[in-house]
Amino acid sequence: MSMDETKKDEGQVSRRQLLRTGVGLAGAGLVGAGIGASRLAGAELAGAGSSANESDAVGVEERGGAAAANGQTMVGVKFEARDTVRLGVIGVGSRGTGMLGNFLAIPHVQVNAICDSVKEHATHAQEMVEKSGGKKPEIYANGEHDYENLCKRSDLDFIYIATPWQWHAPMGIAAMKGGAHAGLEVPAVVTLEECQQIVDVSEKTRRHCMIMENCCYGESELLVMNMVRAGMFGELLHGEGAYIHDLRKIVNEDRSEGLWRRDWHTKLNGNVYPTHGLGPVANYMGINRGDKFEYLVSMSSPQAGLDAYREANVPKDSPKWKEKYILGDMNTSLIKTAKGRTIVVQHDVVNPQPYDRINLIKGVKGMFRGYPDRIFFDGQKGEEAYTGLDDYRAQYEHKLWREHGKDAEDKGHGGMDYLMLLRLVQCLREGLEPDIDVYDAAAWSAIGGLSEASVANGSAPQKFPDFTHGQWKQRNGSAI
Amino acid sequence: MSMDETKKDEGQVSRRQLLRTGVGLAGAGLVGAGIGASRLAGAELAGAGSSANESDAVGVEERGGAAAANGQTMVGVKFEARDTVRLGVIGVGSRGTGMLGNFLAIPHVQVNAICDSVKEHATHAQEMVEKSGGKKPEIYANGEHDYENLCKRSDLDFIYIATPWQWHAPMGIAAMKGGAHAGLEVPAVVTLEECQQIVDVSEKTRRHCMIMENCCYGESELLVMNMVRAGMFGELLHGEGAYIHDLRKIVNEDRSEGLWRRDWHTKLNGNVYPTHGLGPVANYMGINRGDKFEYLVSMSSPQAGLDAYREANVPKDSPKWKEKYILGDMNTSLIKTAKGRTIVVQHDVVNPQPYDRINLIKGVKGMFRGYPDRIFFDGQKGEEAYTGLDDYRAQYEHKLWREHGKDAEDKGHGGMDYLMLLRLVQCLREGLEPDIDVYDAAAWSAIGGLSEASVANGSAPQKFPDFTHGQWKQRNGSAI
Repeated sequence: MSMDETKKDEGQVSRRQLLRTGVGLAGAGLVGAGIGASRLAGAELAGAGSSANESDAVGVEERGGAAAANGQTMVGVKFEARDTVRLGVIGVGSRGTGMLGNFLAIPHVQVNAICDSVKEHATHAQEMVEKSGGKKPEIYANGEHDYENLCKRSDLDFIYIATPWQWHAPMGIAAMKGGAHAGLEVPAVVTLEECQQIVDVSEKTRRHCMIMENCCYGESELLVMNMVRAGMFGELLHGEGAYIHDLRKIVNEDRSEGLWRRDWHTKLNGNVYPTHGLGPVANYMGINRGDKFEYLVSMSSPQAGLDAYREANVPKDSPKWKEKYILGDMNTSLIKTAKGRTIVVQHDVVNPQPYDRINLIKGVKGMFRGYPDRIFFDGQKGEEAYTGLDDYRAQYEHKLWREHGKDAEDKGHGGMDYLMLLRLVQCLREGLEPDIDVYDAAAWSAIGGLSEASVANGSAPQKFPDFTHGQWKQRNGSAI
Repeated sequence: MSMDETKKDEGQVSRRQLLRTGVGLAGAGLVGAGIGASRLAGAELAGAGSSANESDAVGVEERGGAAAANGQTMVGVKFEARDTVRLGVIGVGSRGTGMLGNFLAIPHVQVNAICDSVKEHATHAQEMVEKSGGKKPEIYANGEHDYENLCKRSDLDFIYIATPWQWHAPMGIAAMKGGAHAGLEVPAVVTLEECQQIVDVSEKTRRHCMIMENCCYGESELLVMNMVRAGMFGELLHGEGAYIHDLRKIVNEDRSEGLWRRDWHTKLNGNVYPTHGLGPVANYMGINRGDKFEYLVSMSSPQAGLDAYREANVPKDSPKWKEKYILGDMNTSLIKTAKGRTIVVQHDVVNPQPYDRINLIKGVKGMFRGYPDRIFFDGQKGEEAYTGLDDYRAQYEHKLWREHGKDAEDKGHGGMDYLMLLRLVQCLREGLEPDIDVYDAAAWSAIGGLSEASVANGSAPQKFPDFTHGQWKQRNGSAI
């Protein structure tokens, strides 16, 4: 989270703006060094397209190794099985460091390289790896483009990226072009163009590019997902998710996350961080697996929270008074799916409010809502009163939580970070498909650009691109 | 609620369709018998416009008595004071009968006339009045147009209307044209055209046409409104309201409310019943009193609840199987106000779910949400945890509840029905402005037609008419 901590110069802001408006990446972002032939020479990808044609096509790619596969789907493409997962980490600020700790608690993970533009962060992470008993990883801390050198390494299977949002796309693309699979922290990428770019590069390089959406691995989320799949809610109709979190202190810091995160509030008006609430709902509904986001409308409240905070807390001579915040405090977006279902997604991080991701799903047989968890099924005892989830745990608890929940308990964010990574390592080692793939990353991140466009146009509807090239129709099953 | 219980013939459906598409009322709906000159000869209306010009204009109208005042605002127009409120009631099904009971518990109310197309309902209501010690009211039960005769009476100050929704506009208009003030049960009226018509007729006849929105008189709603006015929430940003209620049994009845209510589910797709959740939020925000609804977007989930209910409960040979339901189960609308604030309004009455009107208001200093009531203010003890409303009751409890809450407790809907009517009678007797006027009725009801139009057009934005002719800008204070 500290990539630009001391680097907020004009050049960076210009580049960021380019990225945001979607014209910059072809020149500025595709910075990788070509596909790492040494790793792709073998038939790493055990392709498994969801239609006969795709299987054939992927088969060609498998045999062809590193040849470009422009437009070949990544749906159903499995990781190659391996015993040890060789990891690179870009960005070891507070989030990256926490996640590194989780990685180090998982067997068969070998951290080979660490990058952060703040050298102390990188060396601290290096020490963490050594203390855990690992080999000393190489560090890349020579400026904000040193990640490009990390991505050129041929000994990385997966690169985890936890940097300011504007760096996710170029770094993920560099990782894939360098030959590694990429994991982007939420919100994955920011602009619609970046959504398309990570899909294009993933399909071309045959590398996965995942969104590391930890909330999809929450105990309640996975339990409810299992109940949805078992048909407990009947036909699904409507879902809601949100990121309601009072981050005023963090956003107002004059260092690290405060600088770049607050910067977004001066750059655009929309939902810049939709996936914590949306990801689980997308999984309940099987988005990209039988259903698809079709269009959205979006509306933002006035901006007032950051102004009020500044008025109350910032000295009048602070340079912060030059900042003009344009991101409406509360953004509400409505999404329509191909099956006609509706989803509400909200975002507010600059007002006093208890944390709430909403996490609501309803169908013709019942409904669930989080914060706190409560559930209601047609005809249940105690008319019109919710019950808790406890009665359903024995039957529907997700395998990940049943088998590993105890190990996760003492770890960050209620254990969901650890279990997400445990599952990732399992997929990488056993040669499974990723739970959540580049199409999910693109579709979920698209809320950002589409909500911005809708807000800027009086809440006019905005259509989602079909990043899957129609594969969402045939694809079965669901993530995780 | 029983006006069309046994009258569902082709003629009525045609007329309803005309009303819905907004072309019928000029011919079919303006059925009143002209202004009741006997009552309007005196200067009943103590006009008090919110600007000097308006005051003058209303003054002219005052002196002119019954002369038409086309386009003269009803903003700030007071009732004439009177000692006894002479009441007519149209519709004494379950809702009307319950409300009649509340009216009879209020001193200085004299029920002079009762109308229902079901004679037993009318006579039952007549008996209620007599049993309460009142003079035997005349009944109008000679077909579904006998209300027109009730409206011609010259001894009615106020006509309360609790009939199927499609009758509200023509009945309210007949009441006003007959010389009485009108009170329409929620959702007031259905189409945009009806919204404009009740405003036009109110301005022309100088009679008020109110929406009888009981939820605006709930204890929590009025308490929170007082806190909003005291600035406790700071600048307001966002509100939410809903009508989430499992009405599957009522909607599926083969009599009374079931027939006409279910009929709406075959006629349109939008939010047909928005005001229980929206009214209180509109009051918090001062809609039509400094702020105004500007535009909305709306989205409906699939229809599935009524189909599922029919599949499970209705014999295969029932004529109900010929009904085709098109109203999406869960409708979500987003409203943008002139001050840029946002409001979410939802509606679902055909799925298993605990009752929820949401009732959320948030500003830069805190937020409140109902179901159950919980509140959070910036910096309060116990970080990120809501508290209840109890600590605020001593200081902010609304006068109506403080003075009359005890009398209301044992009455319907937690007392809010009774207090709404008590306050109405107070306004009529003391010559005050109505708390909620025809502009509120029109703006709130407009959600119906605008949501339908938005849903039919892929959630395209729909602009609200300014029913107040710009008066919302100058008007101060707020309803109730």
